[in-house]
Amino acid sequence: MTTAIYPGSFDPVHNGHLDVIRRAAALFDRVVVAVSQEARKNGLFAVRARAAMLRQAVKGLAGVEVRPYAGLTVAFARSVGADVIVKGLRGVEDFEHELRQAVMNRHLGGLETVFFIPSPEYAQISSTLIREVALLGGDVTAFVPRAVAQRMTTRRRRGTRRPGTR
Amino acid sequence: MTTAIYPGSFDPVHNGHLDVIRRAAALFDRVVVAVSQEARKNGLFAVRARAAMLRQAVKGLAGVEVRPYAGLTVAFARSVGADVIVKGLRGVEDFEHELRQAVMNRHLGGLETVFFIPSPEYAQISSTLIREVALLGGDVTAFVPRAVAQRMTTRRRRGTRRPGTR
Amino acid sequence: MTTAIYPGSFDPVHNGHLDVIRRAAALFDRVVVAVSQEARKNGLFAVRARAAMLRQAVKGLAGVEVRPYAGLTVAFARSVGADVIVKGLRGVEDFEHELRQAVMNRHLGGLETVFFIPSPEYAQISSTLIREVALLGGDVTAFVPRAVAQRMTTRRRRGTRRPGTR
Amino acid sequence: MTTAIYPGSFDPVHNGHLDVIRRAAALFDRVVVAVSQEARKNGLFAVRARAAMLRQAVKGLAGVEVRPYAGLTVAFARSVGADVIVKGLRGVEDFEHELRQAVMNRHLGGLETVFFIPSPEYAQISSTLIREVALLGGDVTAFVPRAVAQRMTTRRRRGTRRPGTR
Amino acid sequence: MTTAIYPGSFDPVHNGHLDVIRRAAALFDRVVVAVSQEARKNGLFAVRARAAMLRQAVKGLAGVEVRPYAGLTVAFARSVGADVIVKGLRGVEDFEHELRQAVMNRHLGGLETVFFIPSPEYAQISSTLIREVALLGGDVTAFVPRAVAQRMTTRRRRGTRRPGTR
Amino acid sequence: MTTAIYPGSFDPVHNGHLDVIRRAAALFDRVVVAVSQEARKNGLFAVRARAAMLRQAVKGLAGVEVRPYAGLTVAFARSVGADVIVKGLRGVEDFEHELRQAVMNRHLGGLETVFFIPSPEYAQISSTLIREVALLGGDVTAFVPRAVAQRMTTRRRRGTRRPGTR
Repeated sequence: MTTAIYPGSFDPVHNGHLDVIRRAAALFDRVVVAVSQEARKNGLFAVRARAAMLRQAVKGLAGVEVRPYAGLTVAFARSVGADVIVKGLRGVEDFEHELRQAVMNRHLGGLETVFFIPSPEYAQISSTLIREVALLGGDVTAFVPRAVAQRMTTRRRRGTRRPGTR
Repeated sequence: MTTAIYPGSFDPVHNGHLDVIRRAAALFDRVVVAVSQEARKNGLFAVRARAAMLRQAVKGLAGVEVRPYAGLTVAFARSVGADVIVKGLRGVEDFEHELRQAVMNRHLGGLETVFFIPSPEYAQISSTLIREVALLGGDVTAFVPRAVAQRMTTRRRRGTRRPGTR
Repeated sequence: MTTAIYPGSFDPVHNGHLDVIRRAAALFDRVVVAVSQEARKNGLFAVRARAAMLRQAVKGLAGVEVRPYAGLTVAFARSVGADVIVKGLRGVEDFEHELRQAVMNRHLGGLETVFFIPSPEYAQISSTLIREVALLGGDVTAFVPRAVAQRMTTRRRRGTRRPGTR
Repeated sequence: MTTAIYPGSFDPVHNGHLDVIRRAAALFDRVVVAVSQEARKNGLFAVRARAAMLRQAVKGLAGVEVRPYAGLTVAFARSVGADVIVKGLRGVEDFEHELRQAVMNRHLGGLETVFFIPSPEYAQISSTLIREVALLGGDVTAFVPRAVAQRMTTRRRRGTRRPGTR
Repeated sequence: MTTAIYPGSFDPVHNGHLDVIRRAAALFDRVVVAVSQEARKNGLFAVRARAAMLRQAVKGLAGVEVRPYAGLTVAFARSVGADVIVKGLRGVEDFEHELRQAVMNRHLGGLETVFFIPSPEYAQISSTLIREVALLGGDVTAFVPRAVAQRMTTRRRRGTRRPGTR
Repeated sequence: MTTAIYPGSFDPVHNGHLDVIRRAAALFDRVVVAVSQEARKNGLFAVRARAAMLRQAVKGLAGVEVRPYAGLTVAFARSVGADVIVKGLRGVEDFEHELRQAVMNRHLGGLETVFFIPSPEYAQISSTLIREVALLGGDVTAFVPRAVAQRMTTRRRRGTRRPGTR
C-alpha cells in the first residue's frame, strides 16, 4: 500500500487543491492532506477551520484523510507512514520554490516528492488571490468549495481582517 | 470611444509607468490611471500624494486622468465606464502575477486586460527598488519625474520611513 | 476607427488563436488576421489552405478579415492601415520571444504590440503540438475548428508529411 | 500493482535519466522505459542501440523493463497497461514543454503524468549537450553509463556524424 | 590589482555562498565579503554574528576579507576600492532580481556586476530555507559551515525566534 | 594578467555583443573574442567574414583580439591561456542554456564562466532576429556596427539566403 502526503496551508482550500487531491487519490492508495499550523502573514482562517473545510470538501473521496500538523513536514510524513509527498505545479514561480523544498525534504527525510499538474482551468487560482478578492467583496464562488465560499462571506461581514491563524 | 483603466499603487510613479501611460493614450481615447488606496507593506506615500505626483506627471497628455480608488479594481473600472484594463509587462515574474490577475478580473467583471511592453530602458525599474535606493540616499532622478525626485529627497531628510499609506 | 493586425503562421489555426481573435474583435473595430507565407520547418499546410481554414473559422465574426502576407510584418501592417499588432501570451517561453519581436516591430515601424491572455483552457495548446499529435493519429478535435480537424485527418490518410508550405 | 511508463528519446541515456528511473522504481511496482522510434534532427543512435544501452544500464533494477515504441505515447502506454507517465523536470524550459505534453496526454488517453526532480548534480545534463560535447571530442564519462561512453568514443572515431536514427 | 565586492545578508552564510567566494577569490586578487546591516524581516542573526561566522568560514582563503556595511552597496564598494560586484545566480527568480540590482548599481556608481554559477549541488540552498528548517528542528549541517550549524542549534534551544537583526 | 575568452557564433556581431566586449575589456587585461566555426542552421556569414566584421568593430579597444576556432571551447581557451569565459545574459531562456554550458565547461576544462548583463537597450537584440529582419529587407542599422549593416544589405541584394557558413 502506498501512502502519499499532500502538505500545505490550505488557507482556504480551493478547487485547484481538490483537483490535485483527486489525481493523487486515483494513483495512490491513501492520501493524507496535511494542514500546516504554521502562522502565515496575512492568514485568514485558523488551522481548525481550514481542516474542517477540507474535510467537508473531500468527503466521499476514498482513501483521503485530513490532518493538521506542526513542525517539519518530513517528520509528520514519517509519523503517518507516508511513502511520498505530492504537490501541484502551476507555473514557473511555483516550480523554483517547490524544487528547493523537494531537494530539502529528500535530504531531511529521504522522502521523494512527485508533482501533479492541475487542470488548466485551475492553473491561475491561488489561496492568496482568493483571500484578497474575497476580502474586497469579490465573488469567489467559482474557485472554492461551497462551504468555503459561505465562510468567507461570513468572515467578511464581521469585518475581521487578520485573525490569529491558529 | 474606448476607455482604458491603468490600475496600480504608483508608490511612487516612475518613468516606466509613464511610458505605459503614453502608449495606452496613443491607442485608446481615454485612459484612467487608477491609484489604489490599499495599504502596502513598506509603502512610502499616501494615496493623495501618489495621485498628486501622477497628475503633475501626466499634465498635457490628452485623454489621461488620475483617480484614487478603493475596493475591487473591476468595480471601479465599471464605475468609470472602462472597456479594458491596461498593464505593463517587464519580465517573467510580472508575467505570472499579471496572468493570474487578468484571469481573475475577466471572471469577476468580464473585463479584458491588454499588456504593453515598456521601452527596454525602463524594463529594470520598479517602485520597490526606487524606494529602497532613495531611502538609502541614492539618486533616483533618472528614473522618476522631477516632482517625485524632489518629494523623495524631502521625505528622506525628514527621516520618515514608514508613514501611513493613506 | 482602430485597426489591429494579428500576424502568425496559423499552421493550423486552433481554438487558442480563435480566442485571441474574439477578444481583439471585441476591443478593436477591425482585426486583420495576417497569415505569414514564410516557410516554416515542419510546416503542414500551404498558406492558401491555412487562410481558407481561418476564413471559415472566423465567419460571422464582425470586423474580422483574413489576409496572407509575405515580407516584414510591419510593412504589411502599414499597407492595411493597422494601428496596433495583437498577440496572445501563453507562457514564459512565448513571453521572451514576443518581447523581442515587439521591441523590433516598434523600432521598424513605430508599431505598438498589445498582448491578450487566452482563456486558461487554451494555454497549453500550440500548432506544433497539434501537428505532432495529429500526424501520429491522435484526435485533436477538441483543440481546433471542425474544418481543420477534417483536413488533418485527410492529410494524414494520404500519408503526406511535409508538403511545400507555399 | 501500479505500472509507470517513462517515455523519451534517450539518445543517449545519461545519469539524469537513470536517477529518474531509480526514483520511479522505488515508488511504483513496474517501470516501463519507453524508447521513442521517432526520428530526431541531430539524432545520434538508432533506436535499437539506444534501447540496448538502456537495458545494460538498468540491469539489476527490479521492476524496470526497456521497450522501443512508435506512435502516440498514450497508445503505447495503454498497450503495456501503464497507470501513469513519469518524467523528470530540470528547469523552466523543461517545465513549459512538459506541461503541454502532460495536458495533451491526459486529454488523449486519460493518462496522468507525475514529475520527479532529479538530483541537483544531474540538473544541468541533457542528451543534446552530451552529443555536442562528445562529437567534439570532449570527455562525457562523468555523465553517462560506461557502455554509452564507450560507444560514443567508437562512433566519433568512425567519424559518423548523422546516422539514420532508426 | 582587481578588488571584487560580494554583498549580501548572509543570514546565515551557507555552502553556496562559500562556493561563490572561492570562485571569486580564484579570479580576483581581493574579495571583500560585505555583510549588510539592513534589517530583514524574519532575520535570524545580528550583523556582528553573521560577520563572525563568515570570518571563521573563510579563514585561510587568501585575499578574502569580511566587512559589515550600511547604506548603499555602491557607496561602500567605492570606499573599499572595489572594481566589480560579484553575485551568484541559482535560478530564474534570482536572475530577474539580480538583473534589476545590477542595472541600478551600474547607474548609481558606474559599478559593474559579474555573476558566478554555484556548483549544482548548492543551487537549491537558500538562507531563508535554512532558517525555516533549522527553526523547526531540521538538521542543516550538510548545507552550512560547522560554526553556523552549532549556533543555529543553540539559538533554537533558547527558543529565540526573531531577535533584533542588528 | 587575466585573460578572458568570449566565445560565440557572432553571425553577425551586434551592439549587444560589443557592449559585453567593452565591459569585459574594462575588467580583464586581455579579451579573446572566439568565433566558432561550427556550422549553424540558418547561418548567414562564413567564419572569416564574421571574424573580419568583429575585428573592424573592436578596432581601438585595448586588449581585445578576435580569433576563429573549431572544436571544444575549453580546448581553445586553454590554447590562448584563458583564465575565464565571459558571456552576456539577456533573459531566462539564455540563462538556462548558459547555465548548462557553464557547468559543462567547468567540468571539461576546470574553466570558470562569469556573466555580464548587457545594457537594457541591447537586451532584446539577437543575431537570429537581426538575420530574419535583414533578409526581409528591414533596417537593422540601429542594432549592428556600420560594416555589418553594409554587408547585410549587399548580401540581401545578391539574394543569397543560405551560404556555406565556413
